[in-house]
Amino acid sequence: MYKATVIIKLKKGLLDPEGRTIKQALNFLGFKEVKEVDSYKMLDIVLDAENEEKARERVKEMCEKLLANPVIHNYEIKIEKLSV
Amino acid sequence: MYKATVIIKLKKGLLDPEGRTIKQALNFLGFKEVKEVDSYKMLDIVLDAENEEKARERVKEMCEKLLANPVIHNYEIKIEKLSV
Repeated sequence: MYKATVIIKLKKGLLDPEGRTIKQALNFLGFKEVKEVDSYKMLDIVLDAENEEKARERVKEMCEKLLANPVIHNYEIKIEKLSV
Repeated sequence: MYKATVIIKLKKGLLDPEGRTIKQALNFLGFKEVKEVDSYKMLDIVLDAENEEKARERVKEMCEKLLANPVIHNYEIKIEKLSV
């Protein structure tokens, strides 16, 4: 069993309305020192695989088919072996 | 300048409908090896602070006041110095 951690970020230059709204809310609440906020999505996926390489390949496929939109998103995949 | 990375997770035992839906969609698309999916929110916050300790304290305050709901969320804070 492997645990894949997938981080899905907006590509550089794309507007992040959620991050912008959080920044404004923080500034408004008195956190004037906040200069920038970026928001991401993170997923932990537990899956069966023969080895780490195969797990990474399958998670990459999942990102391309469902999890990320290649037009606007970049993604990072980290694989970790679970000792179960 | 410091960059704080905040990871906001649902507490153990709470239903994560987004993760569940993603798991079902992946299984349906043929990724039968997926056993579990958990979804999180991640924020990068760039802020001014005197030192790392003060930055962490302020980000903790932000989590308590706005970013996380203490009834249902746990959060992790990582602080990193930006070389600007």
